[in-house]
Amino acid sequence: MGLELYLDLLSQPCRAVYIFAKKNSIPFELRTVDLRKGQHLSDAFAQISPLQKVPVLKDGDFTLTESVAILLYMTRKYKVPDHWYPQDLQARARVDEYLAWQHMALRRNCLRALWHKVMLPVFLGEPVSPEMLAATLAELDVTLQVLEDKFLQDKAFLAGPHVSLADLVAITELMHPVGAGCQVFEGRPKLAVWRQRVEAAVGEVLFQEAHEVILKAKHSQPADPTIKQKMMSRVLAMIQ
Amino acid sequence: MGLELYLDLLSQPCRAVYIFAKKNSIPFELRTVDLRKGQHLSDAFAQISPLQKVPVLKDGDFTLTESVAILLYMTRKYKVPDHWYPQDLQARARVDEYLAWQHMALRRNCLRALWHKVMLPVFLGEPVSPEMLAATLAELDVTLQVLEDKFLQDKAFLAGPHVSLADLVAITELMHPVGAGCQVFEGRPKLAVWRQRVEAAVGEVLFQEAHEVILKAKHSQPADPTIKQKMMSRVLAMIQ
Repeated sequence: MGLELYLDLLSQPCRAVYIFAKKNSIPFELRTVDLRKGQHLSDAFAQISPLQKVPVLKDGDFTLTESVAILLYMTRKYKVPDHWYPQDLQARARVDEYLAWQHMALRRNCLRALWHKVMLPVFLGEPVSPEMLAATLAELDVTLQVLEDKFLQDKAFLAGPHVSLADLVAITELMHPVGAGCQVFEGRPKLAVWRQRVEAAVGEVLFQEAHEVILKAKHSQPADPTIKQKMMSRVLAMIQ
Repeated sequence: MGLELYLDLLSQPCRAVYIFAKKNSIPFELRTVDLRKGQHLSDAFAQISPLQKVPVLKDGDFTLTESVAILLYMTRKYKVPDHWYPQDLQARARVDEYLAWQHMALRRNCLRALWHKVMLPVFLGEPVSPEMLAATLAELDVTLQVLEDKFLQDKAFLAGPHVSLADLVAITELMHPVGAGCQVFEGRPKLAVWRQRVEAAVGEVLFQEAHEVILKAKHSQPADPTIKQKMMSRVLAMIQ
């Protein structure tokens, strides 16, 4: 059995893994785990991934979770162009720095923006107060400023002159609030041009394909009550 | 100018970086940034690190933030034993998996435990309700169970038979709630034995030295009101 990737493209880390594998012609079997149907909560999936999260990589009997670890694994196992995770000491450190920073910053705030604006009210039928939503979007705004000022600066890409894992993880993250209808790039010309560069580097067809699901997220059908009951506490823990 | 490390050993990521550099005889100049005196909020420190967080590594004119990136940089720049970040594809992926997971899990919950139990009430003079503290400690307990069941399992160390960056980042994290007076290892014999193994691998003298500050954190002097005012919103954002 070759490489298997358990993904739902609704999830940002899954989109990063999917785009990376496709772009680098890494052969894999796609195992779709439909989060909105609660398939990640099944006993069968718990056998594969005890924490019941996507993405998951299976390579024979080796199972790996955490998108950053999966991306790094693929850069090492397959011949991928150096720019994704450069050999150069300082350039690689810049990629690592971004990948470490984003967990508690951009990732958290993009996830909250999507759930507070769309997924909680539309999918789970749970209203979010205007004050809560405003606070979430204000936090996102602060983080976007850090992304621009500290990480992007006047460079072409986050870690230097070439596209890297940092850009891929960041752009797929930003598409969460974009999918929720936030004007992430408005008034941020530097980020807007960077987005175009990353899309071009990845390839527009692949980029669009990977983002079809999230761009339709606001039209999600309301969750089945049983699914909602199963998911609610996990969702609240995830977006706290 | 050689390597400079800007640290306060009150901070978990700083302890990991400090122990790693010392243990591997990496020569560095220690630049102490006293967090409780608000030295990280000074204009001078903002010049070095715009996000005003420790640890920071300076290597000539190259400045790097984020402890995980700093640890990886040191493994690459200096000759350190392979076990810290193994060349073996799967073993390295296990280290990466832990380092990615901990940000939103063990790191968050250990930090909250310290602040809710000690730093907010003792240092900042802000009471924390018993309900809030209980919820924080319950979350920590869930995360400790994941650390034991998913990551440690029946292995000697988190990523396999040898000590790695994963263990160093985890143990320095767990010493946060230990410093706050939580009985982290009680009723968890596997984690308790693992702790002894990690301490022995690091060296007990170095381990104790690096943890002197956190083990005395509960006797922190109350913050100066000006410092408190400067720090409050940052602290609340950090431990949310």
